[in-house]
Amino acid sequence: MIKIVVTENSPVQFKKNWKFCVGTGRLGLALQKEYLEHLKIVKDAIGFEYIRGHGLLHDDIGIYREIEIDGEIRPFYNFTYIDRIFDAYLELGIRPFVEIGFMPKLLASGDQTIFEWKGNVTPPKNYEKWSDLVKAVVSHFVERYGLEEVLKWPFEIWNEPNLVNFWKDADKQEYFKLYKVTANAVKAVHPDLQVGGPAICGGADEWIVEFLEFCDIEKVPVDFVSRHAYTSKKPKKITFDYYYQDLVENTAMLAEFEKVRGLIDQSAFPHLPLHITEYNTSYSPINPVHDTVLNAAYLARILSEGADYVDSFSYWTFSDVFEELGVPKAQFHGGFGLIALNGIPKPTFHLFSFFNSLGEEQLYRDENTLITRRRDGSIALVAWNLVMDKGTGFEKEVEFELPVSFNEVFVKRQTVDENHANPWRTWQEMGRPRFPDKTSVETLRQVAKPLVRTSRMKSVGGKVTYRATLTKNEVTLMEFIPVKDETDTYIGLDDSLITSY
Amino acid sequence: MIKIVVTENSPVQFKKNWKFCVGTGRLGLALQKEYLEHLKIVKDAIGFEYIRGHGLLHDDIGIYREIEIDGEIRPFYNFTYIDRIFDAYLELGIRPFVEIGFMPKLLASGDQTIFEWKGNVTPPKNYEKWSDLVKAVVSHFVERYGLEEVLKWPFEIWNEPNLVNFWKDADKQEYFKLYKVTANAVKAVHPDLQVGGPAICGGADEWIVEFLEFCDIEKVPVDFVSRHAYTSKKPKKITFDYYYQDLVENTAMLAEFEKVRGLIDQSAFPHLPLHITEYNTSYSPINPVHDTVLNAAYLARILSEGADYVDSFSYWTFSDVFEELGVPKAQFHGGFGLIALNGIPKPTFHLFSFFNSLGEEQLYRDENTLITRRRDGSIALVAWNLVMDKGTGFEKEVEFELPVSFNEVFVKRQTVDENHANPWRTWQEMGRPRFPDKTSVETLRQVAKPLVRTSRMKSVGGKVTYRATLTKNEVTLMEFIPVKDETDTYIGLDDSLITSY
Amino acid sequence: MIKIVVTENSPVQFKKNWKFCVGTGRLGLALQKEYLEHLKIVKDAIGFEYIRGHGLLHDDIGIYREIEIDGEIRPFYNFTYIDRIFDAYLELGIRPFVEIGFMPKLLASGDQTIFEWKGNVTPPKNYEKWSDLVKAVVSHFVERYGLEEVLKWPFEIWNEPNLVNFWKDADKQEYFKLYKVTANAVKAVHPDLQVGGPAICGGADEWIVEFLEFCDIEKVPVDFVSRHAYTSKKPKKITFDYYYQDLVENTAMLAEFEKVRGLIDQSAFPHLPLHITEYNTSYSPINPVHDTVLNAAYLARILSEGADYVDSFSYWTFSDVFEELGVPKAQFHGGFGLIALNGIPKPTFHLFSFFNSLGEEQLYRDENTLITRRRDGSIALVAWNLVMDKGTGFEKEVEFELPVSFNEVFVKRQTVDENHANPWRTWQEMGRPRFPDKTSVETLRQVAKPLVRTSRMKSVGGKVTYRATLTKNEVTLMEFIPVKDETDTYIGLDDSLITSY
Amino acid sequence: MIKIVVTENSPVQFKKNWKFCVGTGRLGLALQKEYLEHLKIVKDAIGFEYIRGHGLLHDDIGIYREIEIDGEIRPFYNFTYIDRIFDAYLELGIRPFVEIGFMPKLLASGDQTIFEWKGNVTPPKNYEKWSDLVKAVVSHFVERYGLEEVLKWPFEIWNEPNLVNFWKDADKQEYFKLYKVTANAVKAVHPDLQVGGPAICGGADEWIVEFLEFCDIEKVPVDFVSRHAYTSKKPKKITFDYYYQDLVENTAMLAEFEKVRGLIDQSAFPHLPLHITEYNTSYSPINPVHDTVLNAAYLARILSEGADYVDSFSYWTFSDVFEELGVPKAQFHGGFGLIALNGIPKPTFHLFSFFNSLGEEQLYRDENTLITRRRDGSIALVAWNLVMDKGTGFEKEVEFELPVSFNEVFVKRQTVDENHANPWRTWQEMGRPRFPDKTSVETLRQVAKPLVRTSRMKSVGGKVTYRATLTKNEVTLMEFIPVKDETDTYIGLDDSLITSY
Repeated sequence: MIKIVVTENSPVQFKKNWKFCVGTGRLGLALQKEYLEHLKIVKDAIGFEYIRGHGLLHDDIGIYREIEIDGEIRPFYNFTYIDRIFDAYLELGIRPFVEIGFMPKLLASGDQTIFEWKGNVTPPKNYEKWSDLVKAVVSHFVERYGLEEVLKWPFEIWNEPNLVNFWKDADKQEYFKLYKVTANAVKAVHPDLQVGGPAICGGADEWIVEFLEFCDIEKVPVDFVSRHAYTSKKPKKITFDYYYQDLVENTAMLAEFEKVRGLIDQSAFPHLPLHITEYNTSYSPINPVHDTVLNAAYLARILSEGADYVDSFSYWTFSDVFEELGVPKAQFHGGFGLIALNGIPKPTFHLFSFFNSLGEEQLYRDENTLITRRRDGSIALVAWNLVMDKGTGFEKEVEFELPVSFNEVFVKRQTVDENHANPWRTWQEMGRPRFPDKTSVETLRQVAKPLVRTSRMKSVGGKVTYRATLTKNEVTLMEFIPVKDETDTYIGLDDSLITSY
Repeated sequence: MIKIVVTENSPVQFKKNWKFCVGTGRLGLALQKEYLEHLKIVKDAIGFEYIRGHGLLHDDIGIYREIEIDGEIRPFYNFTYIDRIFDAYLELGIRPFVEIGFMPKLLASGDQTIFEWKGNVTPPKNYEKWSDLVKAVVSHFVERYGLEEVLKWPFEIWNEPNLVNFWKDADKQEYFKLYKVTANAVKAVHPDLQVGGPAICGGADEWIVEFLEFCDIEKVPVDFVSRHAYTSKKPKKITFDYYYQDLVENTAMLAEFEKVRGLIDQSAFPHLPLHITEYNTSYSPINPVHDTVLNAAYLARILSEGADYVDSFSYWTFSDVFEELGVPKAQFHGGFGLIALNGIPKPTFHLFSFFNSLGEEQLYRDENTLITRRRDGSIALVAWNLVMDKGTGFEKEVEFELPVSFNEVFVKRQTVDENHANPWRTWQEMGRPRFPDKTSVETLRQVAKPLVRTSRMKSVGGKVTYRATLTKNEVTLMEFIPVKDETDTYIGLDDSLITSY
Repeated sequence: MIKIVVTENSPVQFKKNWKFCVGTGRLGLALQKEYLEHLKIVKDAIGFEYIRGHGLLHDDIGIYREIEIDGEIRPFYNFTYIDRIFDAYLELGIRPFVEIGFMPKLLASGDQTIFEWKGNVTPPKNYEKWSDLVKAVVSHFVERYGLEEVLKWPFEIWNEPNLVNFWKDADKQEYFKLYKVTANAVKAVHPDLQVGGPAICGGADEWIVEFLEFCDIEKVPVDFVSRHAYTSKKPKKITFDYYYQDLVENTAMLAEFEKVRGLIDQSAFPHLPLHITEYNTSYSPINPVHDTVLNAAYLARILSEGADYVDSFSYWTFSDVFEELGVPKAQFHGGFGLIALNGIPKPTFHLFSFFNSLGEEQLYRDENTLITRRRDGSIALVAWNLVMDKGTGFEKEVEFELPVSFNEVFVKRQTVDENHANPWRTWQEMGRPRFPDKTSVETLRQVAKPLVRTSRMKSVGGKVTYRATLTKNEVTLMEFIPVKDETDTYIGLDDSLITSY
Repeated sequence: MIKIVVTENSPVQFKKNWKFCVGTGRLGLALQKEYLEHLKIVKDAIGFEYIRGHGLLHDDIGIYREIEIDGEIRPFYNFTYIDRIFDAYLELGIRPFVEIGFMPKLLASGDQTIFEWKGNVTPPKNYEKWSDLVKAVVSHFVERYGLEEVLKWPFEIWNEPNLVNFWKDADKQEYFKLYKVTANAVKAVHPDLQVGGPAICGGADEWIVEFLEFCDIEKVPVDFVSRHAYTSKKPKKITFDYYYQDLVENTAMLAEFEKVRGLIDQSAFPHLPLHITEYNTSYSPINPVHDTVLNAAYLARILSEGADYVDSFSYWTFSDVFEELGVPKAQFHGGFGLIALNGIPKPTFHLFSFFNSLGEEQLYRDENTLITRRRDGSIALVAWNLVMDKGTGFEKEVEFELPVSFNEVFVKRQTVDENHANPWRTWQEMGRPRFPDKTSVETLRQVAKPLVRTSRMKSVGGKVTYRATLTKNEVTLMEFIPVKDETDTYIGLDDSLITSY
């Protein structure tokens, strides 16, 4: 049995950088009703402040078009759809973390595309027209939403230009050029608008160094650095339906955060914020790990410790409404989403929701535990039992000794594990229906809720001691809430007079 | 261990008489937002077809008023509120089972009242004016809702006239007079409108006999007989907050049903329908038994077998929004409701919801079990483990052998017991807050859901065998659903490649 | 023709004191669904910040009750309903302006009541118990909603104690005693809570003077002064359905505001805020004037100029869901409401809505006109043509010359007059159905909208000149909005090619 | 002045064939939130029973995909999106009129596409795979929605195969082959499913004849004939933003209906139903005529008389959420929709809504008028004043003499004309904002409502005479409703006592 004794040492702040931003499939999907329903669920329960996704300038949203008049080509900017999308975000209380990309076909220098939805990843064939486009788009945002609002939106230039499938030839100098032109276009609208990059994926951190050198030497504006992080190894098997990978240790991701922070600290811009604008276990949208309880248990430590190093880290993505590999082919298909199709929360959704219940005062932290105090004096802790081995068992007993300033304690414990809040397992039992009927969906929603257990304790000497067993890959939220007991106010109360009680 | 073997004998119909009607606090409460929210929850989950409550003619709804013009008194009928109320019912898809009463103050012959809301229970001081009132009200219903609709509404005359607190001196002859005048007034609007009585409470069944004799001899119209049933003994303790009673066996209620059916069969009107227009364990709205799991386990057999004897039986009541003893004084206070204040379902709500999942083909029934088949071939059963003794333990193991026509079975089991779907217990742990804050309410809603367990089985030889342990006073719904397994359609599926799986 | 020339002199602020507060029927009605629907309509369109009504301590909400234990009487405070009510207000974004009264029956020294709902208007029989009650109630508010919130709620002691029907014998010294005890009880919960009185109706302003002297001499806390104002003369005819009165000039109300302000200025508390916690034309809830267009035209000047004298003035009341004379007896019945039964806005609703469209910069004001500029540079004005004479005609032509900083002007004009936004007239044509069916209600909703006329103008020399005819008792909102013309961006636009255009 | 005298001759039935079906942009748009909001508005007000659109098999919905396994290509059918779409339709109470097309890229024999969204219009490269796809899709519908439901869905094969841009080379024999294979595939799922074609546009009615001959000779199943109809002439001017055309007389469309009906009558299948599965004035989605009042006045006669010839005619389309020429480029852009972007109804929306208010008993009809009686005895008529000439004036005075069985008449008249319910005009005044802000949208919604005028009349000798002036292109609904006058029930009513009244 593990024993955790929390004392009243000087507490530190638990920073909620983990809820600053969340990822989304291409922005065009935000026109969909189901997408917006999922986003509302996520916003209500977790409260992400920003949302980031690809495809702002993709042709499905259709911002850029050209007209020929008297033999001359003129740009036409169409904001019908992007207005609808950003209106919807802001109505839900979530702001865009704007990723500028990909290339409208009419401006593209090549025809290389990515994803089933064919995002064009080639440089502009005409940088002046590109700059005009960026200015027009950002100006429109300022006009529609007001400068005060848009000053709060970070603008990130492109996505993972260090990968050949996201940026033609992964041409670094071409990216720097794109960055410079784009950043200057944004700043031309207003100098206080925030721009940043290089939005690289992991494994190429020399880009960070060179990017900052470039900005320094070329006097290019940069307000933040961005980077991605995934912890999956090379694929073991790839099929039509699934992409299987193992994971490295979750500490590897924290180490990456720290390393990049260090690179910035040593640059000419040591105080720049660092935003991890994408992270997850696997980078594949058909890796079943995303549907598992393990995924939640694995990420718990990242949420707990990530803010030590980075200003934000943005889970990729909030919903399985996602089309990078085409229309999702089954109820559960290994998608990135916190919410599966048909509005069914996955275990990782609850991980975020649990963290959202924590207080801002951090009393204790270890690799499996995070203990906080809330403003009302109650204690809220999340504990997890990450087990990356196969097989059953692996239960862990933990005893928490917690300092409380009240005598009577109401304990509320919520559990996500293999047997609770695990709709994926029930779906397997159902025979893995790809397109479940309404009754099955209703059952999946029912089983997708955490187990809730409540009890009542007394504190002794300013302390309460609670013992819990954590099953394999369980993630649990425990709340220790002061009781204002009113039992005595019930005149003549005598439960023993109730039949069978 | 109990073993239940269900064979393919000729099945009988499971009649849903238990969902024909539900009781409500005085109709004036139906103006309230919270009342209507509770009614929607109940209607959506259970689907009651009718609703019945007191107070149609009570002065809070204010239908009857008088005007003096030129020294002459004229009636004024005000339908502002009753229109709102019946409109709301019909919009929710529930029809009124109309109870005609109590007496408007201006028509009352005395000032005896009942309940904190002071329903006047004296005979009319002028039967002609009373008759005019009834005609005016029923005519208004026909005008507003159409004859076709109103022909579906039963009209029941008064409530429990055999009790001195509900009808002055429990004067039987006066009641018969009231019945005759009222029934004739209703029929004067249209002869096919349905009228009935005598709406007595238990313990006075000679009223039934004499009432039917009266109708026979006096040629008074009668389309149904109505009666109430409660199974609580004399109070053991009565306090400001609570009213404690023990319960007789639940079979006693069934015996009462049967007895009254027999009385009708032997009357001059042997084919009249019998409606139990109120029933519950205790007749007190502050008896904590209503909040318990026992209440559900106790009533299960009534729901299972009641239709053997009666055409409907109407649970009293759907909601704790109820004022017979004044404004409810606490979150849980022993109210009749299926739904507690703040929209929290009680165990008995789930009993009804479980029964609503049953099929119409009854395969097996005993005193603790009801097994049905649904149209899609799935089996749905409710089982319960009623324990009226105090103390812990009392677990019961049951093995069900069920005939199924499919090989693979998805089993979904829902459980209500002391530890699940029992918000009353959690509320005790919280210190019984009378007026809980929003956070506590949210917790109570969370714990008010049944435990859902799912699994997968194979049938052998057209049979599936399922073993279950029922805890003390558990009520459980089990569904055995054919599986259309699609697992093979996932190309290259190999769960073993998932980390830790 | 009247010509109004607005020049760019130094503008003053148009204070929105008229939207600080609105009146309501007894608080217990706030449990009703329809009441809350009306309040939402009013809040969305007008944005009142506070709501004030009678009956906080009336027995329908049931806060005060007593228990006898061991021969001793103990108070029991029941917050079930008041929590629901204040929760609902705050969810709609409206705060309570708390009126403390009337007397719970168990605390009353007599049985004098007011209204069909029988509010007890006698002094407490035990001032200590009364003080305890007030402390308990206010403490509960602080506990449930937080001190920061409750510090924003004014507490006003009683209602119109200068009238014998609202306060036994209109006993001034007894009121002062009540005030002192109550104010001290509120301050005992927290000294920064705001208390005030004497909430008198007009015609007895010596109460103001003596009340402030009393507070000064007795060192009784007072944070604001409150008073009511109605402008109707003695009744001409009173019937079961209606109460007919003529009105004095609307300037009489402004004169009363000014007079009371002067009395305070000359008191020992010269800086105390003055809240007119009720005003309207007639004080009768069955005076048809409330349903007329005249009512809106008459009150326009009060809204325009009231803030010259008083810190707030609270229209009595927002909705016809109101029971002082019992359940409303017809769709239109002369009720106070801005919203009639079935959610139908009356002309005066639009008056408030129009004022809510005005800017904060007041450019011009006369007795029929109020002209403002909004932050975006647009001009918004309300004009009215009050005609208290009978007969047709009375049209008025007005020319507005307005200073604008833009060339192209989009003009939007909304009109309420005898023929538009006048559902009362259409209802008369329908045969005055007391309880209209859904189709009729739908028609009434349709005709209850203002006529909207739009046009396009050019400004000349920084001015735009607009000519309007105002019909009898018209109230009109005109908005002059800068146009950003995009017509030229439509390539090849040629409307003449459209058939028939 | 025109005088219309309606006598009590034997009335005929007014058939509501005009509301059987409505058109939609490609089905994939039905995932969008705004699309569904518009559909709900239309369904609530007009009640269309079916909806028909292109793109069921287009790759954005993604039903057809292929998997290579062990060197063999296997089809994969993905129903994720189509389930969402048809679920949404059925939840709104509208059924699919299923158009089978276009060609999934993987099955296409060529790469010819149509529309910005690139619907492939080439024959299948493998008819067996095509047949399998059709069977799979229809089988899935039957499985998900039940046979009873799907038997109510017509299946129409392809769209406008007589046009080279909708069907490669407009190859008739290839279409007949496609029809045969597809119809047989549908019938293979269940022989009672309804199939039809050839869904041609106008101007090629020899296709109808030959199609029916083909079905006759080849014993190919055919349950209905379908055809389209537009009344616009050749374009006068085509630009980036607009497509200008004149219109032929509206009677030309009725003549086409009649002609096709005749062709069927003379075929081997004389009793086949005829569905006009698309019609409108112009076939261009950027012709401003669709936004005009003229469009409504022009179509009125079609709605009035179309059912003389055809079993249904389906307005193309219900909403401007439509992408055939890409994302709509402005608030008003000449789209087909009854509802413009941002939920703003156009004049033609009200035409349909007015027709939906008519009764089923047709009392009178001429080219400008349709007069009906409703079940409650009220008269409802629609009149219109189509003027295809330019310029102002053209008012028309009409006197209606109508037979009524009641004395007092409430008249409700609704008007759509150049000055009312014409948001397009107000939008022009605003400067034609392409992407209007919320305030402007709110104004457009306000002005998009018909003018409502009400009055009261007496009938004389069983007749009521009503005189109306119709402005240019006005469409007006007049309702003559019996009055049940309750004025006398208001005791002491005397309106003359109201100030200024």
